[in-house]
Formats: sequence, C-alpha cells, structure tokens
Amino acid sequence: MKRIMLTVAYDGTNYCGWQIQPTGLTVEEVLNRELSRLLGEDIRVLGVSRTDSGVHALGNLCVFDTETSIPAEKICYAINQSLPPDIVVQSSCEVPSDFHPRKHDSIKTYEYVIYAARIPSPIRDRYCLFFYQPLDVEKMRRAAACLIGEHDFKSFCSSHSDKEYTVRTLTDITIETRRVSDGNALDGEAPAIPGSAGLAPAEEIRIRVSGTGFLYNMVRIIVGTLLRVGTGFWPPEYVSEILESKDRGKAGPCAPARGLTLLEIKLL
Amino acid sequence: MKRIMLTVAYDGTNYCGWQIQPTGLTVEEVLNRELSRLLGEDIRVLGVSRTDSGVHALGNLCVFDTETSIPAEKICYAINQSLPPDIVVQSSCEVPSDFHPRKHDSIKTYEYVIYAARIPSPIRDRYCLFFYQPLDVEKMRRAAACLIGEHDFKSFCSSHSDKEYTVRTLTDITIETRRVSDGNALDGEAPAIPGSAGLAPAEEIRIRVSGTGFLYNMVRIIVGTLLRVGTGFWPPEYVSEILESKDRGKAGPCAPARGLTLLEIKLL
Repeated sequence: MKRIMLTVAYDGTNYCGWQIQPTGLTVEEVLNRELSRLLGEDIRVLGVSRTDSGVHALGNLCVFDTETSIPAEKICYAINQSLPPDIVVQSSCEVPSDFHPRKHDSIKTYEYVIYAARIPSPIRDRYCLFFYQPLDVEKMRRAAACLIGEHDFKSFCSSHSDKEYTVRTLTDITIETRRVSDGNALDGEAPAIPGSAGLAPAEEIRIRVSGTGFLYNMVRIIVGTLLRVGTGFWPPEYVSEILESKDRGKAGPCAPARGLTLLEIKLL
Repeated sequence: MKRIMLTVAYDGTNYCGWQIQPTGLTVEEVLNRELSRLLGEDIRVLGVSRTDSGVHALGNLCVFDTETSIPAEKICYAINQSLPPDIVVQSSCEVPSDFHPRKHDSIKTYEYVIYAARIPSPIRDRYCLFFYQPLDVEKMRRAAACLIGEHDFKSFCSSHSDKEYTVRTLTDITIETRRVSDGNALDGEAPAIPGSAGLAPAEEIRIRVSGTGFLYNMVRIIVGTLLRVGTGFWPPEYVSEILESKDRGKAGPCAPARGLTLLEIKLL
C-alpha cells in the first residue's frame, strides 16, 4: 500500500464543487470513479480544499492509498487519459503513508479575476466577473491592506457556516491590473489593433489572497467588499470597521464563484 | 429604413460556425432570432466572415436593415440583454444604406493559440491547442515568412472547397511566445509561485495571420504546417515547396478549430 498525492486543476463551471454532494456531480466523485476504474481498486481521494460550486482550481491537492504498481509519477499521465477535459491532474507523487495534507500547515493562494470593461467578453465569461462600473484600484489596495495579518474574520464568513472559531491569518493580498484588448493580453501596452471596435481596451484586475486558512465564502466576501470600495460606495478605512463589527451584514456581497480560482496550496 | 453594422464576439465552442446550417445551431441563427424578437421585425443579418464550426471571434462584422427607432449605438446594449453569454455584440453603428461589408476591401486578422506544456490545462482547453512536443519557434517564424505576400495558396485550401481562384495576399504573420504559469500570464517572468507543481511554467504561442482574403481552412492548414516545421519534421524552406506544388496533400494537417479566433476585420 502506498499513498499518492495529486495536484488537480479543474474548470469548476460544470461541477457542484469539490466535495461529493447528493445534488450534483463533483470533482471528487469524478476522480474517485476514474481512479477506481484505472487502478482496479475502490479509490477514495481525500482533498485538501473543498472548493465551492463553480469555483476553479489550478493547484488543489488530494491523496489516496493504492496497491498499484504504476510508478507514482506516471499516474497523472494515465488518469488524464480518462478524465474529462475540464479536470486535469497536473502531477502525482508518492508521500509518506501517514501524510495527511489537511493536518499539514499550508498557505493557500486564491485569485479572483475581474474583467473591467464596457461590454462583457464571451471568451472570458467562464473565468471572470464582468464589471462595468469604474473601479479605483488604489482605494481597493488600501482597503485590502487592512485585512492582512491575523484577524477575526467573522464579518467575512458566510452566515451559513457553523464555524465557531473565526480567527484566520491572511499573509498577503495583492491587486494587479493590466490592460487587455479583449482576448489578447498586451501587458499594459496600447491595443495591438487600434481603431477596432471589437477590441476596445479593457482591464483585467487580479486580486490574489494568500493565507493559512479560510472561512466559508471568505475570499468571495472580501472581493465583494473591495468592489464596494472600488466604486466609491465605501471609503477604504471602512473595511477595518467591518472587521471589528464581527457582523456579516456589514460586509459586501459574496462575489460570484466564476471569478475565483484556487491557485495553489503550499505545504509548509 | 436604416442599415446597422454590428461587431460580434463569440465563443464558438457550442456553435456550428457562423452561417445558418440545417445540422446545428449557428451564430447567425441566434442573432436573427434575438434581433427579430427585440426589434419586432424579420431581421436577417449579413455576416462578413463565415467562421467554421468551433472557431471563435472577437470582431466579426455583420449588417442588417431595420425600421427601429432605437439609436444605432444603443442596439448593442439592448441585444446583449437577450443573447446567450457566449455571443456578445461589442458595438453597433449606422452605416450608409448601400454599404455592403463583403464587397468592401478589408484586412482580416486571425489568431491561433497553442498551449505548449507538459500537461493540458482545463481552463485553456476551449481556446487553445494543447501541444506537448517541443517547438522551435524561430524555425516556425522563418517558415511563416515564406507565406507573406501574394501567392497561390491552393496547397493551403481544404480539398472540400470549390474555389477556382486560390491566389490570396497575406499582409503579415507574427508568432509571439510568452511564458505562463498556468492561468496566470506573467509576461516572460518566472512563475509567481515557485515550487508549485500545479503551476508548471508553460508557453503560450500566438500565431497571428493577417490578409485581404482567406480560403477555406487556410489559417488552420498554415498552422498545421508550421507545427510540422516547429517539431523539426520539415525544414522551414519546405514551406516554399508546398506553396509551389499547389497540392493540398503536401501541406500539414488542418489544426483544430478550438485554437482559432477571428480577431478583427479592418475595413479599408
């Protein structure tokens, strides 16, 4: 028996999140089914991060035990042959048999992408929140800075959560912008094809949030709050008040799942 | 009666191309249906470029005639309310009533995107060709240079085409590469999150082809041919031989539709 760890990437659009649900297909269910078929054993993966319905991932992690003789590093290539194109195992490796990734300290990094433009883009629709109101990114950065460090994030936790302990540590929040001429990222330059109505310059705003742990919907509520600051609805300093209030009703709305990607889980 | 021109963007994944077909849903059909419903008239759009099944567009153009009192510039906002998210009208404007975009001289620009990596990416799957063999981009550029200018492109035209006259002019072909750490374009820098197995650095190769006219499947056969050069299967100079042969059988395969986007039609 050996324990294998997989790095799993997926487009979450067509899944009810990671964790097995009675209500619809999940990433965990597809992995269990296809790994069991490939290895001829009853495989149950144990995931590190239970991403929500519609949320994407590039670097989620899971482990499972197997008797297979397939070399650990080759399992990713073998399993990708039978997975649907919206789930791809990026790598596979053997880990010690007592290794339990959920009990391991880690830093998770999420990215939320906003497509700030006059008109939405059909080829960005799956992975971005389209937002047409002008955003003051400097104000959003100032607001985000209030959230870095150890805080009680009760105001930024879904009211559907039953978590009692709501203190978490965010190690970093960065907000990067870059001009794009739709579908064609040009890295801050002017659009390549001037005068084209179809390629109006727009901005991609990437909010990256890293921390040692996250509450239910926490990143999406942070983004919903930063958007209210960006539009000028709230001043940046108001975010500290929201934190102190420990009242979910004070924070902004939960931003849609489509813009959120779990980029990485770094095991410490 | 006035004539309106639309700039139309779409994710072609779920459509049998632009032009109305008995075999499946097309972009033209959806536009006709939704414009007719919005304007209360029987609207028939006339498209400039009949993109193939699965091909995307950011700047296709079409015109139609209408009696509507909605200001021309507002039509795009109105129609986007009822279009599915994978078709978006980027702009609308009035043009002279005798304006016929297909009879107008134009330069069309297509882009073909290759995701060159060890393992495919679930979030790039819809818009890229995944290619795991190493590619020599310098050789591809030398091969592409042979194609610029006025040539008989018979070798690069689908054998299913009935076009007699196969001389066309390519005004430019450029091939740009950029390192990406999956989903997170970093513009040639090292990956932001080093040591992450899920974010292995990879390359995005963008082949842009501009010309005054294109034959059926021409860009995709050019790409299929350049890939054969990039892998070292053919030397760059062989592309001139392919041109001279006027034999479709000599050129490379037709690259998959998913990687191709009609970026722009510039009316001259």
